[in-house]
Formats: sequence, structure tokens, C-alpha cells
Amino acid sequence: MEFSSKLLERAVNEMSQLPGIGKRTALRLVLHLLKQPKEQTNGLADALQTMRSDIKFCRSCNNISDVELCEICSSSNRDETLVCVVEDIRDVMAIENTSSFKGLYHVLGGKISPMDGIGPHDLNIEPLIKKVKEGTIKELIFALSSTMEGDTTNFYIYKQIQEYNINMSTIARGISVGDELEYADEITLARSILNRVPFESSLKT
Amino acid sequence: MEFSSKLLERAVNEMSQLPGIGKRTALRLVLHLLKQPKEQTNGLADALQTMRSDIKFCRSCNNISDVELCEICSSSNRDETLVCVVEDIRDVMAIENTSSFKGLYHVLGGKISPMDGIGPHDLNIEPLIKKVKEGTIKELIFALSSTMEGDTTNFYIYKQIQEYNINMSTIARGISVGDELEYADEITLARSILNRVPFESSLKT
Repeated sequence: MEFSSKLLERAVNEMSQLPGIGKRTALRLVLHLLKQPKEQTNGLADALQTMRSDIKFCRSCNNISDVELCEICSSSNRDETLVCVVEDIRDVMAIENTSSFKGLYHVLGGKISPMDGIGPHDLNIEPLIKKVKEGTIKELIFALSSTMEGDTTNFYIYKQIQEYNINMSTIARGISVGDELEYADEITLARSILNRVPFESSLKT
Repeated sequence: MEFSSKLLERAVNEMSQLPGIGKRTALRLVLHLLKQPKEQTNGLADALQTMRSDIKFCRSCNNISDVELCEICSSSNRDETLVCVVEDIRDVMAIENTSSFKGLYHVLGGKISPMDGIGPHDLNIEPLIKKVKEGTIKELIFALSSTMEGDTTNFYIYKQIQEYNINMSTIARGISVGDELEYADEITLARSILNRVPFESSLKT
């Protein structure tokens, strides 16, 4: 792509560094900004910069927060003996949306993935093990995605803390509510049969 | 979507004002920036702001440029009697890529579209008519997309300048090079037959 303006070219190049945004999309977005009032561009730029420089991570759960200790960790209505291990803030938001979980979270910030050069020490695993050692946690729920990386991360944490006497569980895998059996993959269907639940308990939710 | 951080929420909201970027995509992009060094966010923000405040539009053709008179308009190798009317800078870039056009451009900045509230006076049409009146232009090539809006814009300009003695043409519509006839729409195919070219001249390119 040849640009008639260096300013435009630089903006497009910076924009196209975002994941999933190619040069053409970047050009479309940048030209859109040019057609809008200056305030929109300034607002976007300022919001991104302020966020990047001022954002904090909760010192307990590592979730994104505006304060030292996030709202969930500092709440007195939460069961601090129950901790859900998730990959990132999106998972916290998804679980919070269900209003069904009243424990705390622990955000790892990723999954162990040797292919991408991410080892256990690049993640927020050490503080979790420390928390387990301190003895307040009674149950740990692994809620990572069931990929090779997710399973590896679960297993790594499990090995580190198996000597301590806490319960460890993973979220249930099964057929999504509303899905047709015939379209489900075999592994999910097999797991949903293996881990069947008593009919009475399925009536509760 | 409920956010654990106002800073994050604001960044996501600003980002999701861009066309084709929803809240989820915006969150993904913003979280990506959080994982990258601060310099990337600052670079993006600065590039956007500098572009928005410092960018110029060529006073002759209205194309985006860093200088008063763009490179194409100020070039002595260009035929200033031949002017190609296009919608925006992307069309200029596309035509320049072919290296087949040696005239100048005139960038309208859009198409007449009553549905979107865009009339002739919102576009850069007046300066084009002025240029035609001055008498340097011998041929005008309309290269707008062949939609209702494009055709309306072409016709509006045509009516304004038909009294002046200049040639007006539109780019050829036909089957794309490499395309199969059977998949072409009827209008395109019909036009390509109506506007057939002598076989010898098709050998040249």
C-alpha cells in the first residue's frame, strides 16, 4: 500500500498492529475517524492512554481493577474459601453474568503454552499456591478452557498443591442447554454421560 | 457488560464507536494493548491524534496529503487535462496501484445519498465545476461505484457541466479478468457485450 500522507500511513500502521485488524481495515477505521469530529479521535486516544498507564491489577486476584483490592475480593458477601481459577477478565465477567458463583476468583493471565513461549512463571500461579499454603481456601474450581493448554495448566497447579488438603474441581463439560444431541462432538457427549447428575438435582436450576 | 474498572470500560466504549467493532471485539483489542508494552498504546494514541489534527487535504484535488498541494497534483509528469473523479483516497490508491492512469484526480469525499442525508453541497463538487469552467480539463472520467448513489452523483455533475465542451466518460463495466462468465450477473454481462472492444485493442494490455 502506498500512502499519499505519512501521517495517514503511520496511523494505519499503528492501527494494524491490533490483532485481527489488517491494513485495509485499519485504513477504513482511520478514514472513519477523519470524517468524525476531532473530539472522537482525542477521546479514543486519551481513553487508551489513561487506561494503559493508570489501570491496576487487584493484588489478591489479579483481575483488572481501578483500586488496589478489587470489588469482588473486598466484598463481605463472598465466600473466600471457594476460589475459581480463570484465564482472564473476560472469564470473570462471563461467570459474574450468571450470578451463580459467590466465591472469589484467581486470574492467571493466560495458560501455559510452550508453543507460544509461555511457561508457569509467566503466569500468576505462584500467588495462588501461596494462598493455598496459607490455608483459607477449601475448594478450588478450575474454569480454564478444555484445550491442551488449559488441561496442562490445570495439571501443573494440581501437582503443586495436591499435598495440601483442599478440594479441587473443574467446571462440568456437557451438552449446552438448548443444543441438539446429534450435533455435539463425541468427547463432550461421552463426558456428559459419564458425569451424569441425579435427575432431582437437575430440577433445581 | 459489567466492567470491574471504569478505565477499561471507557476504553472499550470509545473503541466500540469505530465501525464494525462491537463491545466484545473492543474488549479483545483493549486487553491485547494491556498485554503489550506501554509504548504501543502511546504510539497508537499519538499517531491517531497527530493525524487527526495535522492532516491536510490537497487544495486542488482534495486528496489526503501532508502538504498544501499533493504529490500527484504538483507532479509535472501528469496530464492535467485528464481528471478522474473518485469517491475517496482508497480509490486513488487503487487506481495508482495499476500505474495505468497518468492524469489527475478529483476526490469528492463521498457520494450523493439522500438516505444518509448527504446532498451535493456536502461533497467537494463545487470546486470541480469551477475547475471545468476554467477550461483546463479536456476529459473527465467518472470512477464512482455503479450503485444508485454513484449514478446519481455522476448524473448531478454531468448536468452541471454539460454546457461546457469537455469529454465525459465512465470506467468500463464488464467481466473481471479471470472471472467465469457463468457466475457474472446479467447487467454486468449485458454491459460487457454492449460495450465490446475491437479484438486488436484487447491484445495491448
